[in-house]
Amino acid sequence: MAKTRMHRPKARRPRGFEDRTARVLRTERALADAVSRVYERWGFEPLQTPAFEYADALGKFLPDEERPNEGVFAVRDDDAQWMALRYDLTAPLARFVAENFQDIAKPFRRYQFGDVWRNEKPGPGRFRQFVQCDADSVGAPGPVADAEMIALASEVMMDVRGLSDKEYVIRVNDRRFLDGVMEFLGDATRERRLRVLRAIDKIDRVGFQGLEQLLGEGRKDKSGDFTEGAGLDADQRRHVLDFVKIGVKDASDKTAHNAQVFEQLTRVLGDTDAGKRAVVDMETIAAVLDALGKSDNWRLDTSVVRGLGYYTGPVFEAELLAEAIHEGGSPIRFGSVGGGGRYDDLVTRFTGQAVPATGFSFGVSRFAAILGWRDVDEADPLVLIVAVEKDRMAEYFALVRDLRQAELGLRAEVFIGGGGMSKQLKYADQRDAAFAVIIGSTEREKGEAQIKDLALGARLASEISSNKIWREDQPAQFTVPRAKIADAIRDRLKSRSA
Amino acid sequence: MAKTRMHRPKARRPRGFEDRTARVLRTERALADAVSRVYERWGFEPLQTPAFEYADALGKFLPDEERPNEGVFAVRDDDAQWMALRYDLTAPLARFVAENFQDIAKPFRRYQFGDVWRNEKPGPGRFRQFVQCDADSVGAPGPVADAEMIALASEVMMDVRGLSDKEYVIRVNDRRFLDGVMEFLGDATRERRLRVLRAIDKIDRVGFQGLEQLLGEGRKDKSGDFTEGAGLDADQRRHVLDFVKIGVKDASDKTAHNAQVFEQLTRVLGDTDAGKRAVVDMETIAAVLDALGKSDNWRLDTSVVRGLGYYTGPVFEAELLAEAIHEGGSPIRFGSVGGGGRYDDLVTRFTGQAVPATGFSFGVSRFAAILGWRDVDEADPLVLIVAVEKDRMAEYFALVRDLRQAELGLRAEVFIGGGGMSKQLKYADQRDAAFAVIIGSTEREKGEAQIKDLALGARLASEISSNKIWREDQPAQFTVPRAKIADAIRDRLKSRSA
Repeated sequence: MAKTRMHRPKARRPRGFEDRTARVLRTERALADAVSRVYERWGFEPLQTPAFEYADALGKFLPDEERPNEGVFAVRDDDAQWMALRYDLTAPLARFVAENFQDIAKPFRRYQFGDVWRNEKPGPGRFRQFVQCDADSVGAPGPVADAEMIALASEVMMDVRGLSDKEYVIRVNDRRFLDGVMEFLGDATRERRLRVLRAIDKIDRVGFQGLEQLLGEGRKDKSGDFTEGAGLDADQRRHVLDFVKIGVKDASDKTAHNAQVFEQLTRVLGDTDAGKRAVVDMETIAAVLDALGKSDNWRLDTSVVRGLGYYTGPVFEAELLAEAIHEGGSPIRFGSVGGGGRYDDLVTRFTGQAVPATGFSFGVSRFAAILGWRDVDEADPLVLIVAVEKDRMAEYFALVRDLRQAELGLRAEVFIGGGGMSKQLKYADQRDAAFAVIIGSTEREKGEAQIKDLALGARLASEISSNKIWREDQPAQFTVPRAKIADAIRDRLKSRSA
Repeated sequence: MAKTRMHRPKARRPRGFEDRTARVLRTERALADAVSRVYERWGFEPLQTPAFEYADALGKFLPDEERPNEGVFAVRDDDAQWMALRYDLTAPLARFVAENFQDIAKPFRRYQFGDVWRNEKPGPGRFRQFVQCDADSVGAPGPVADAEMIALASEVMMDVRGLSDKEYVIRVNDRRFLDGVMEFLGDATRERRLRVLRAIDKIDRVGFQGLEQLLGEGRKDKSGDFTEGAGLDADQRRHVLDFVKIGVKDASDKTAHNAQVFEQLTRVLGDTDAGKRAVVDMETIAAVLDALGKSDNWRLDTSVVRGLGYYTGPVFEAELLAEAIHEGGSPIRFGSVGGGGRYDDLVTRFTGQAVPATGFSFGVSRFAAILGWRDVDEADPLVLIVAVEKDRMAEYFALVRDLRQAELGLRAEVFIGGGGMSKQLKYADQRDAAFAVIIGSTEREKGEAQIKDLALGARLASEISSNKIWREDQPAQFTVPRAKIADAIRDRLKSRSA
């Protein structure tokens, strides 16, 4: 190691990446487990594709299409082919389906749980790696399959943390509505449509005034950066704004809201083909959502875009509404914790065959980060065996084995670091240990053990009017025979959870 | 999409990467869950570091140190710093501990579950991405902490699939034994020692004769490639070979074997400092393994090296011994499914402080691939609702909702693809569905449903002497009232599992 010692590397993680520790990870895992259970119950099968795909197979569907070579982490393989880390779980699914088209049951219903990477400029709360958990139906045409996805999104929100329909909403739109609007305006080029989509996608940040600028000549932000606009004239801008405004109203009665939006859509879309088809499909979606018991959980919202470039029909976002969750005092702005839509051309681009598909992507990291502030999935209580006599470690390990094998399978460890009693009790405190077991020479000779009830000790210390009876009944420190340690701890834990 | 259609990408996954489908994934997840439970019970806390680390922070510890820039996937960040995907979970842990040294409880006991990447030449069964699940104690000096890791490896093997001590063994060595041998030979340079280690690491592939060549002038393999040797003379080679041979014997009585190896080690190591310290530590390890009830699960094996360059003391490997598992008729060679050891300098290279550490890495992908051939973790039985009347999809979705919400929470889906009855029943077969529920216009008008018991049907078809009574008692196809579908399916499942 002599060489490396000479120029010591600095210990720092790369910009825009995070270390996730126990608190958020336990929540994240509980979420992923719950979501997976829902996906399984709805008939989806697990799949894991690798982190890398060939760059041409991934395609360029990230929102910022103006910089087509950015957005992904790419490496060149030995054979000179470019590979890139996946930016979502949908593009790799399309590659998998195209590659295995003859061998898979269709519709192909799979779910996948994993990291995705975006090579974006890092910022506060904006990470370059995060976890998604997706379900998709590939080879599933028609609005019925889309309705199932929207219902699935709703089921996930409800099921994973028992959210009520007051605490979340699935906002639903159809990209073909906008196609209808553009057709109505007599301007349906792909490029123009994309610019309008991108402008609408920014509405949460720039508001209606900013949107109008982005639809027109362009907009200069506070930092002075100028974003080129879509170049619509005043009439066109007003029409697009009318369209967007139809569906952004807050609505406590979602059924009435949706009926009203349906009516207004017909007016704004006129007699356009794309628009009419989308309205008919949306009516089917509404009927299936009723049948699945989800009529109160979704609303039509014409401002929903979903950034990714591959969507071709219905799109939707799952949004948390609860306002009670604060981070360090200031209210958190939630936004979307998942979403999806129909992408009929993504497999087609490999095979040329029509393979209609629709899916839902759940943002596990994002949801866990939000929930982390109110619901924490706790570990089992930890028992620390204090290593008093360092030459009798084998005896402590025999004890820890007994505790782990006890009826309840206690979570337990022997202190294996350096240092005496006070350092070890400090460690127990840092680890939030529930109990410390102390066997020094005195206890050993008598065949006993001292147990410190650390959770109780902390509670007594923090309570001004302590419960006297309980304190006498359950002292924070007590002595038991060696053979009764597991029983004594179990009794305490039972009385506490009762 | 017009542009992309013109030059269609080929759907293929990058070389050396695999898609993992339901069968192996369910096993892999069950394994990861079981391992995590063991790690939690032993007092470790979860951590997730990002996939990327700065290249200088990762260091160069991969086995093939002769090509120092190979082995990892590296990208250059916007600010010109090189980042690389982690090749294991230990180097990122060292970075994390060094970065957060003041804030963490020490010893820092964490486990991490995740993908690692190696930029190696792909080959059969040799993947460039795989899943590991590690537990480590950082800030834990001395053989007691190593013993705990070896015991943990044994516990994992035993606990996750109920393996007996006949079916696996933990092979334990200490790198300082070899230091002792080299010291005894009067040749202890780091470079020479590494070459000898690398030669021993290849023993499984090249045998004792190949090892002797690699210790001497070098070895030419079948393809004609020449590997330079360590340049030891004949006496030195014989001494190293004697050392390696001490501990590679098969031994049914592990306690007797270990005692014998201890005795012979003392002879080969002579009076060397490194060797003597390692022997004393190994005796402590043996005592703690006894206390943890693991004396039958490990054996001293002087041929164990562990490829990674950062180990400084005890090293060990967990090996599956079962011979009953065949892949398509030919026996599988198992080798190691996990391992670990002591790495006292890995945090030190950042901070300069002494931070002794030891850990165990469990090869989840590898173990799952092996077990996949005998133990499969099955999904819950799937119920397919056949979409007979395509204009009544909402009714089928109302039914699927009832089934999922039924007492047992059935796994169920409506067919959402295109095609008629025969295509849908073929789909049910491809998906291994247990039941198909058919409601056409006849059944609908009578308020009934037809249920096909597909699992039973398949069984009856495959059994030459079918069980007549059972067949009469449980027909493969039957009709029930609409309201009784869930009950009827549940009864069938119950009688089957009974």
